[in-house]
Amino acid sequence: MKKVFATIITIGDELLIGQVIDTNSAWIAQELNKIGVPVKHRVAVGDVYEDIWNTLDEESKQADIILITGGLGPTADDITKPLLCEYFGGKMIMHQPTLDYITDLFENILKRPMIDRNRKQAEVPDVCTVLKNERGTAPGMLFEKNGKIFVALPGVPHEMKWIMSNHVLNIITQKFNTGFIEHRTLLTAGVGESFLAEMIKDFETTIPSHIKLAYLPNYGMVRLRLTGFSNDKKTLIHEIDTLFYTLKNLVKEFLVIDEDIPMEVVIGKLLNERKQTIATAESCTGGYIAHLLTSIPGSSSYYEGSVISYSYAVKENVLKVQNKTLNTAGAVSEETVKEMVMNVMQIMNTDYAIAVSGIMGPGGETAEKPIGTAWVAVASKNNIITQKFHFRFDRARNIQLTATNALNLMRQLIVDNR
Amino acid sequence: MKKVFATIITIGDELLIGQVIDTNSAWIAQELNKIGVPVKHRVAVGDVYEDIWNTLDEESKQADIILITGGLGPTADDITKPLLCEYFGGKMIMHQPTLDYITDLFENILKRPMIDRNRKQAEVPDVCTVLKNERGTAPGMLFEKNGKIFVALPGVPHEMKWIMSNHVLNIITQKFNTGFIEHRTLLTAGVGESFLAEMIKDFETTIPSHIKLAYLPNYGMVRLRLTGFSNDKKTLIHEIDTLFYTLKNLVKEFLVIDEDIPMEVVIGKLLNERKQTIATAESCTGGYIAHLLTSIPGSSSYYEGSVISYSYAVKENVLKVQNKTLNTAGAVSEETVKEMVMNVMQIMNTDYAIAVSGIMGPGGETAEKPIGTAWVAVASKNNIITQKFHFRFDRARNIQLTATNALNLMRQLIVDNR
Repeated sequence: MKKVFATIITIGDELLIGQVIDTNSAWIAQELNKIGVPVKHRVAVGDVYEDIWNTLDEESKQADIILITGGLGPTADDITKPLLCEYFGGKMIMHQPTLDYITDLFENILKRPMIDRNRKQAEVPDVCTVLKNERGTAPGMLFEKNGKIFVALPGVPHEMKWIMSNHVLNIITQKFNTGFIEHRTLLTAGVGESFLAEMIKDFETTIPSHIKLAYLPNYGMVRLRLTGFSNDKKTLIHEIDTLFYTLKNLVKEFLVIDEDIPMEVVIGKLLNERKQTIATAESCTGGYIAHLLTSIPGSSSYYEGSVISYSYAVKENVLKVQNKTLNTAGAVSEETVKEMVMNVMQIMNTDYAIAVSGIMGPGGETAEKPIGTAWVAVASKNNIITQKFHFRFDRARNIQLTATNALNLMRQLIVDNR
Repeated sequence: MKKVFATIITIGDELLIGQVIDTNSAWIAQELNKIGVPVKHRVAVGDVYEDIWNTLDEESKQADIILITGGLGPTADDITKPLLCEYFGGKMIMHQPTLDYITDLFENILKRPMIDRNRKQAEVPDVCTVLKNERGTAPGMLFEKNGKIFVALPGVPHEMKWIMSNHVLNIITQKFNTGFIEHRTLLTAGVGESFLAEMIKDFETTIPSHIKLAYLPNYGMVRLRLTGFSNDKKTLIHEIDTLFYTLKNLVKEFLVIDEDIPMEVVIGKLLNERKQTIATAESCTGGYIAHLLTSIPGSSSYYEGSVISYSYAVKENVLKVQNKTLNTAGAVSEETVKEMVMNVMQIMNTDYAIAVSGIMGPGGETAEKPIGTAWVAVASKNNIITQKFHFRFDRARNIQLTATNALNLMRQLIVDNR
């Protein structure tokens, strides 16, 4: 087994001025890891001929597989295709199957006139293998040079993903006898990275060198991930499973789940197993908890809905929070979230409910209720738990932290309710 | 004026296995552009000593400012700090002001015991300038070598941003006589990238070489951005404003706004100007529209709330959609979204409302209603507009596209309603 490395090059000025966040690289890296190809480097360059050329030179010294995304769109700021043609010593030709496909797409599906720029998408260097793109008009292109492969893909995420899944991953698996990579990930909540590290420091010294441990903190939760590299799949799986079992026991007090899935999937699994339902009543999180829960396919089997009450009037008229409660305890109070959670559970006729109310900032704080104050209530038919949080960050992060902490409280209540 | 370039190096295995999406680089790039420092390269490397060292060598050949994020956390997978110490030929010392700050933080604010790992955060190479981090325990570090500056920052976004804003940007502005960069961005909706390009192809030939035009497609909308580079600020602003004026006129049919702000901010501005209010009733988008609207600080002055009705029962019992409508036309129909939008506007007593119902996939489709079907209704007191969409993507993207298209319909109705 020869160790094979990949590098990801993303092309586009929009990446260098920060107008676009690169989500493609993360997805590509995940997929390559699954087939045993570690990514050594990720590089972003602008739409500058010389910079792209130099980056291709540099990266191909270090990696066997060079994946390039972006720079293939129909507009004039895209210079990648002619550059690749020159780099690999080809000339541009019209690729008839691609042209036929684009023509059919415009005539029969999009039902829009096809213009010259669309037609130009079917032109490719004659030294590449064309990778059909059934999600758009820019095809992928595969080049080979000195035993290395270069793949150019469009930057639009769903087009890039389709070509990767339907062509590129198979090609890589067939061409390279790649090694084997295995990951085990668990999710903890309610404990900091330093404290976790202290808990498992003796365990860390027992990990062999071909297995690595990583701490991945995110939104008040920490993932721990073991990654093993080997060409002996069976031994590696045994080793990593044994280590993972020990690790789970060491952190069991804070363990949410021993899989690499987000909190909202954990809750969905629990509710599906129990054939139970949930509703939410959100003030400060403004629909973010509902969005997380409904981002999961099939969530309609357990999620009924939400009342987002961004004003006193909606809290009172729709959620039936008592006027007295709002006027004495205030909208951000234990009393209010208790009424919100009980009432939404009744209105939507569910087994569980979550309610939140807080001050996410900037602005809106009072002396007793600073920015970042959030009251959370979670309830079942016979139990209600409330907790006050105080986050110290910006609006977006305060919203995310309130949501994940509310979901974790809900998870605990469902588990305890069995 | 010497042209100064920056490079951004992000460190961490989590970036190379795709477990984390890098949002830091985009933010840093935006801030550097604002002070006239273009970013030439962005590189991600793993927690591998040799790879980090080589990347520092390579990047410092190309750039004057090398910004490094990640790799400074308290846990054992972080190797960056000792590496930087060796790279710049220093030795590790305890930095007393940082230690005092961390000690105070644990004693008086976090009220948790301080452990050895926390204490270690105060150790720094003696050849760096320490940049205080008031958002966490890992300080920033600034090194100088051969007239270039290297800045190492923690990877936690809000900590990195605080140090950048409070230290690094000022230092760069003072040390380098940077040039001047000016951006003008407009947002279009309802038109594809190719078609826009065709509309403005003659205009493109008139743009001088120190000004660039970029197409930034995102969620069914396309941003057009002019970026100018010069050391003559006054002339550049005049040139770019003249070009921008022409560009706006060329695309006026599809123009949403001539600023670089998202659709939800556009709507917030319109409603604030008119002192009017809005509510939403969401089925398939599951709170995402509410989340977009409430992600904007101050949105409580115009946003009342939402009923998220993920089930027939909630549509009927809370949103008062007629049983007859749901049983004959179905939940995904023009009739249902019309009732949803009128009823939520009445229930929440607002000037406008948005309602959506659709099938985001995977699963749930019927012969007449394939995955990606979405009905949108927007209403004012005296007007109601409905539109059927059909998106062809995955769940997450179908939700995003439904939301942005619904917001754009709402924007048009508000504008026409003046």
